[in-house]
Amino acid sequence: MRMYDIIHRKREGLPLTDEEIRFFVGGCVDGSIPDYQISALLMAIYFQGLNDRETAVLTDCMAHSGDVMDLSAIQGFKVDKHSTGGVGDKTTMIVGPMVAACGVPVAKMSGRGLGHTGGTVDKLESIPGFNIALEPDEFIQTVNCMGLCVVGQTGDLAPADKKLYALRDVTATVDSIPLIAASIMSKKIAAGADGIVLDVKVGSGAFMKTVEDAVRLAETMVRIGESAGKKTVALITNMDAPLGNAIGNTIEVVEAVETLRGNGPAALTTICRELAANMLFLAGKGDIVACNRMVRDAILNGTALDKFREMVAAQGGDATVVDDTSKLPSAPDFHRVRAPKSGYITHIDAEKCGIAAALLGAGRQKKEDSIDYTAGILFRENLGDQVDEGVEFARLYSSKSELFTEAERLFLEAVTISEQPLPELPKLLIGRVTAQGAELY
Amino acid sequence: MRMYDIIHRKREGLPLTDEEIRFFVGGCVDGSIPDYQISALLMAIYFQGLNDRETAVLTDCMAHSGDVMDLSAIQGFKVDKHSTGGVGDKTTMIVGPMVAACGVPVAKMSGRGLGHTGGTVDKLESIPGFNIALEPDEFIQTVNCMGLCVVGQTGDLAPADKKLYALRDVTATVDSIPLIAASIMSKKIAAGADGIVLDVKVGSGAFMKTVEDAVRLAETMVRIGESAGKKTVALITNMDAPLGNAIGNTIEVVEAVETLRGNGPAALTTICRELAANMLFLAGKGDIVACNRMVRDAILNGTALDKFREMVAAQGGDATVVDDTSKLPSAPDFHRVRAPKSGYITHIDAEKCGIAAALLGAGRQKKEDSIDYTAGILFRENLGDQVDEGVEFARLYSSKSELFTEAERLFLEAVTISEQPLPELPKLLIGRVTAQGAELY
Repeated sequence: MRMYDIIHRKREGLPLTDEEIRFFVGGCVDGSIPDYQISALLMAIYFQGLNDRETAVLTDCMAHSGDVMDLSAIQGFKVDKHSTGGVGDKTTMIVGPMVAACGVPVAKMSGRGLGHTGGTVDKLESIPGFNIALEPDEFIQTVNCMGLCVVGQTGDLAPADKKLYALRDVTATVDSIPLIAASIMSKKIAAGADGIVLDVKVGSGAFMKTVEDAVRLAETMVRIGESAGKKTVALITNMDAPLGNAIGNTIEVVEAVETLRGNGPAALTTICRELAANMLFLAGKGDIVACNRMVRDAILNGTALDKFREMVAAQGGDATVVDDTSKLPSAPDFHRVRAPKSGYITHIDAEKCGIAAALLGAGRQKKEDSIDYTAGILFRENLGDQVDEGVEFARLYSSKSELFTEAERLFLEAVTISEQPLPELPKLLIGRVTAQGAELY
Repeated sequence: MRMYDIIHRKREGLPLTDEEIRFFVGGCVDGSIPDYQISALLMAIYFQGLNDRETAVLTDCMAHSGDVMDLSAIQGFKVDKHSTGGVGDKTTMIVGPMVAACGVPVAKMSGRGLGHTGGTVDKLESIPGFNIALEPDEFIQTVNCMGLCVVGQTGDLAPADKKLYALRDVTATVDSIPLIAASIMSKKIAAGADGIVLDVKVGSGAFMKTVEDAVRLAETMVRIGESAGKKTVALITNMDAPLGNAIGNTIEVVEAVETLRGNGPAALTTICRELAANMLFLAGKGDIVACNRMVRDAILNGTALDKFREMVAAQGGDATVVDDTSKLPSAPDFHRVRAPKSGYITHIDAEKCGIAAALLGAGRQKKEDSIDYTAGILFRENLGDQVDEGVEFARLYSSKSELFTEAERLFLEAVTISEQPLPELPKLLIGRVTAQGAELY
């Protein structure tokens, strides 16, 4: 078998055989296929696509290209969740405790932030003492003991995806629906859960710019998951603006705690409840209405917040910050961003906000960069709100006050203030895709 | 400027700016752009194409990426020719002397064979003593002295093309019309002639499978040539079968001598005369009818053969072989290929013939391989001819008689013998493209 022939077939729009896909993924991992042939195939796939069988086989090969987590020592039906990237997305910190409080175990591996997007692992590490590097047996024991544990990625999960993603990132072949689907699902399958809830973001701040594309991606991932024997559901949610009011690390922990307490921003609360309810649904806790009610109750009766507190304590963190978030480290300095004119906030560019937050120190440009946990952006008025000229509507935080000028300039570019208010707030929950099909709300 | 953005623009079908193309070619040559980004762009170009301006700028950058031959020390209008690859194509050995005999200087650099196609340089080197490695000043002096010299490639001509071709060859991006056009024309422009006659082959044995594609390639190359200040004409010729009866090295020299003597196969003679006439036409020797007559006369009065003899002598070869070709080295052994059934030869697959000839020793698989100059295939009956079962219709030559069985098997796969004769022989000269437009015969 020759890589040349595989590239040629795909270039001509012909489907690849299972053996060809296996040969390709194997050659990516063992280094026998040179990068220039891999990138040529990726570009051919960008133009010619992959059918359902090819996408499922590619995902399967990638999922099994390295370690596959064995979570069988954890009792019960394990549910994982994944969001397709977001700015201000602190849902894991909120959804995990909600689901665990309802009796479904959550054994979650999360990533670090890069570029304009943050990562759950960084956010949790901003809690003094929190340890995300547990040994596999500690990880499983913690989940069995209290139903919840969030750690950084361990082992060599889906190394084929690492290789392919690194090449896609520099060859303009990231935004291909079958390649995105295979990348996400290979990691989720390797992570070992029994069920997967996907949050597919759509809008100006997301990879998927149209609902149509988001539905296609969601359908592709659900089909892959089901064909790999994982119960899978995808929500399609709006990402025209950052999620919640906080973008950063400690300030996002504060917002997560507030949301678990029932005082979070409406959009963030809605999405977290919906994700949690779908995870319970996959675990067989009842129909989706009943699951929604269980999640609401876990917030109202405090068990969700209790679970978060337990998790912080179990992973070595200072649990007292949960009841007094002022004990979290805070930035030595802040800067008030004042509205340049009066009007209504009609658009917030999530990516530009993420870049401004990263500039303040909340993110990293390269993997090796360190993070200023206390840096970030906090909206005091958000999408749809009225603002008056000269009045503060957001606050920038950083350890380096010399960054405020440039960050404010970037941040103001992200915010559109118009004379006319929005006719209505954009719909947050756009649709839901299950093995039975897609439903748009 | 970032290569990522260049790939992305082309992927989206947007034209690249002159600066972007210059940046790309520069980065290919100096190694600052990694191969995986180059091959991703090549595949994007395969799908999205290049417009006339992009193709012209790419060609110009590639032509000037290394040495550019300065032929200004040669008096007169220098004309070059190029064929888009062929099996049994010995036209340079015939056309060069024809044109020089009519008073137009030919300073020609030719290549070696690789894979299933032969190279003029190998063919000439099969003449004992023939030296294709002249110093630049010897080369120019020889042309000025006797109007003709054929050498191997000297200097570092179009290194960007070498780099790009090597990558295209392994990433299934060879057959893109703008990339083929830029590759050929960059080398022709760097080779320094004032006029260029192109022989664009079309048919089962050629890169271009349809007349439509061949016309597009021819038009693209003529536009590039003219925009670079070179008078350019392209002929479109049939390549459904190998050109002439001989495929090899010494046996092709013999056929070239016969053709210069006026006794060559009809198809080969026709194409050589047409190419030569067009070269004279570009050099301003008269209208195309007058130029055709001049070429015919050069054969009839023996001046074309004289010029070939002079060239062999001037380049150190044994010129007596021209008048007694039996003095050329010949294979120690041959094998008669007998017709497996009676009928008419209705198709000869040129590529398969080339592979069989290479197997016999006439070609090389890798650049480093050596050649058996005496090996090859000689047709005694050719396309359209009647053959009787069990009667010899071709002969295989090799120094290794153990290769005959496998080579015969391959060769017989290449030849189709049918009960019904061809209604007519395929038209050999299909069309002609000049700056004024395309004309199909």
